[in-house]
Amino acid sequence: MNSPFILINFKTYREGTGYGADRIARAASAVMEDTGVTIGIAPPYTDLRKMARHFSIPIFAQHIDGVGAGGFTGHTPAYMMKLEGATGSLINHSERRLTLADIEASLTAAEAEGLTSIICTNNIRTTAAAAALGPDYVAIEPPELIGSGISVAQADPEIIAGSVKAALKQNNQVKVLAGAGIQSGDCVRISLDLGCSGVLLASSVVKAEDPEAVLLDLVSKI
Amino acid sequence: MNSPFILINFKTYREGTGYGADRIARAASAVMEDTGVTIGIAPPYTDLRKMARHFSIPIFAQHIDGVGAGGFTGHTPAYMMKLEGATGSLINHSERRLTLADIEASLTAAEAEGLTSIICTNNIRTTAAAAALGPDYVAIEPPELIGSGISVAQADPEIIAGSVKAALKQNNQVKVLAGAGIQSGDCVRISLDLGCSGVLLASSVVKAEDPEAVLLDLVSKI
Amino acid sequence: MNSPFILINFKTYREGTGYGADRIARAASAVMEDTGVTIGIAPPYTDLRKMARHFSIPIFAQHIDGVGAGGFTGHTPAYMMKLEGATGSLINHSERRLTLADIEASLTAAEAEGLTSIICTNNIRTTAAAAALGPDYVAIEPPELIGSGISVAQADPEIIAGSVKAALKQNNQVKVLAGAGIQSGDCVRISLDLGCSGVLLASSVVKAEDPEAVLLDLVSKI
Amino acid sequence: MNSPFILINFKTYREGTGYGADRIARAASAVMEDTGVTIGIAPPYTDLRKMARHFSIPIFAQHIDGVGAGGFTGHTPAYMMKLEGATGSLINHSERRLTLADIEASLTAAEAEGLTSIICTNNIRTTAAAAALGPDYVAIEPPELIGSGISVAQADPEIIAGSVKAALKQNNQVKVLAGAGIQSGDCVRISLDLGCSGVLLASSVVKAEDPEAVLLDLVSKI
Repeated sequence: MNSPFILINFKTYREGTGYGADRIARAASAVMEDTGVTIGIAPPYTDLRKMARHFSIPIFAQHIDGVGAGGFTGHTPAYMMKLEGATGSLINHSERRLTLADIEASLTAAEAEGLTSIICTNNIRTTAAAAALGPDYVAIEPPELIGSGISVAQADPEIIAGSVKAALKQNNQVKVLAGAGIQSGDCVRISLDLGCSGVLLASSVVKAEDPEAVLLDLVSKI
Repeated sequence: MNSPFILINFKTYREGTGYGADRIARAASAVMEDTGVTIGIAPPYTDLRKMARHFSIPIFAQHIDGVGAGGFTGHTPAYMMKLEGATGSLINHSERRLTLADIEASLTAAEAEGLTSIICTNNIRTTAAAAALGPDYVAIEPPELIGSGISVAQADPEIIAGSVKAALKQNNQVKVLAGAGIQSGDCVRISLDLGCSGVLLASSVVKAEDPEAVLLDLVSKI
Repeated sequence: MNSPFILINFKTYREGTGYGADRIARAASAVMEDTGVTIGIAPPYTDLRKMARHFSIPIFAQHIDGVGAGGFTGHTPAYMMKLEGATGSLINHSERRLTLADIEASLTAAEAEGLTSIICTNNIRTTAAAAALGPDYVAIEPPELIGSGISVAQADPEIIAGSVKAALKQNNQVKVLAGAGIQSGDCVRISLDLGCSGVLLASSVVKAEDPEAVLLDLVSKI
Repeated sequence: MNSPFILINFKTYREGTGYGADRIARAASAVMEDTGVTIGIAPPYTDLRKMARHFSIPIFAQHIDGVGAGGFTGHTPAYMMKLEGATGSLINHSERRLTLADIEASLTAAEAEGLTSIICTNNIRTTAAAAALGPDYVAIEPPELIGSGISVAQADPEIIAGSVKAALKQNNQVKVLAGAGIQSGDCVRISLDLGCSGVLLASSVVKAEDPEAVLLDLVSKI
């Protein structure tokens, strides 16, 4: 994944389940094929298997637990997400915050299963800490902008630039994604210019009338 | 479900995923057909759909979140479990404890989706509280006996009898399941004699070499 | 405490620490003496001892952990709050939610120390569950009204009446307090008329320029 | 605090409250004066003020919340611990784990109040992450050894050496403490030799018949 990476989080939106999930995955797959930009999806746990069978794009779990097989009722261990066909996982999304100890356990479990890891963070300092853990990606998402319709790239470029700088200072291998309010090719362009390797977004694609059109716009200025 | 109810929790045991899940569900289905005793399963989220398509037995989620569609990354809303084909859900299992407010939200979401609800509890007093919430079932599982190999029915019949009494005092419609260490027809018999409507169990079936044999033993003294 | 009970939660307001705490406690003490209405306070942990030494009014902890002496760094066990001079404790306040198992553990610890217990709840159903646990009081506080300046007594009398009814159905010994936005003698009057034994409030007294005047108004229609 | 630093966590041990707290603080104060080694204490919240008034040694809170004054019932904001006289705080102790976002919020609040910060961690990787946040200290405590009577310095020197190395790689200003099972001068000596700036310990001093004798032994090989 050296080209820019766009990851679409389906959350638990109704538009991201069942046929809706197919529709978005098809759009992602088509745009990835046409443009060469890597576009991944993070569907609900229950759609991972179907997505992994039908689409040759990165498939992420929305959360993994750093536990193994055993007595963990209601959990989603990394090994199980891998069995379903996931190629990676979000860890510590702002809607599923974890203790530092659990973030590390989830990351170690992801590595053991060969899953690409993305640790989500809320500010520059936590981005530095997450980078020090050594994941593949850190995704910086200012909580106050998530789902706000206001793009972090336009409203707070300093937090993106500061996060990239802080992350690389701790770990020069880590890649940074920008998230929160990302909705257009301009947002993507600004994020890349500020040193990011891509973006993490959700509603602007998942709830779009025409997801393919939104994705084409997102990649248009790369 | 007026006959005794046996619910098999697959937890995240490796034996309860993929073909293992099929194997246990097939055994449950066969024993239910042969004996008329209701036998349900609680597979991982990722196997719910397949189980629901292939088996005409009660299918439970291991946990549901009392949230709807929307921005709930990594969660398992009741509506989504229903879409997968679940007919019910565990709530507040000892390996996935919830706040009182969240138990109520999960229960209300279960009701809105027509899911059978089982609230798990740890002692007589919390059983009374759970019963007052008005679920279909309360499952009493002393935490110190879960996975211990020691049956609550034999080691602590008083907690079962006390839980049944406390539950019915609060809510004369609620049914009680006994859990923790349940492994034989004797355990089931004792539980029913103490006023339970069935049992909740996991490893003794999931990890069995011959799940059907274990299930046949479990129903043998009903 | 058979007369109406008014409990003032100091939260972590700056006006409720140090001399501010003294000022409110003095007002509570004076109004209690003048009017015979029982007025208690729930100061921060750090002010419990001083309050208990100087004022002969009910002193509540804002939270207790259902653990004993031992390895519980950063916790506030019931026994320790008792040592400080607390006569009771809030449990499960909306700003400090607990699992059902922990609510029960805190309640049992409160009883073991002879502390008056108040379990806070968020709706009618959780009020029923809390009442079934058998505390001295349940305090119903609709979360959306807490700190809103809108009184539950005026905005949602149905939730108060429904909570009283649900609580008494489960436990005819339990007393109910109304909370959220309580600020005047009218609020108290309505709450008592709806079957409550008192009210739980915070900012309207703690942040008042003249706490004694507010308290005198609160008790004026009892 | 350039000399070695020994911090005694009173947890919620009965021996660490009331007169017991005085007794340990007196021993710490005496040994600090006699030997010049900095010895701090982390008493319960309720004893902070008294300790701070009577003893000229570092006084730590066992936990601080990264919130300010306001609606935070049952919390212990940094500003309030500072008002009580604390000079520092533990953050994320293994008995009081926090999300990464909350660790950062607690640390930032500690800095705003001029409190010395110690973030507790459970392995080498989380030590690296904690160091990247920029606290004054990171305290590495393998959870399986806490309260075990087995000293981390003797049972697992590699985790100490690895933690020091990982911490300094991320942040060359940070100091590392070793914790879990520390009980003798040898433990302290080994920890210092492995690059630590001191130790964090609890029961071996708090539950000692003669705390001063234990402290004298602890500093004997510095």
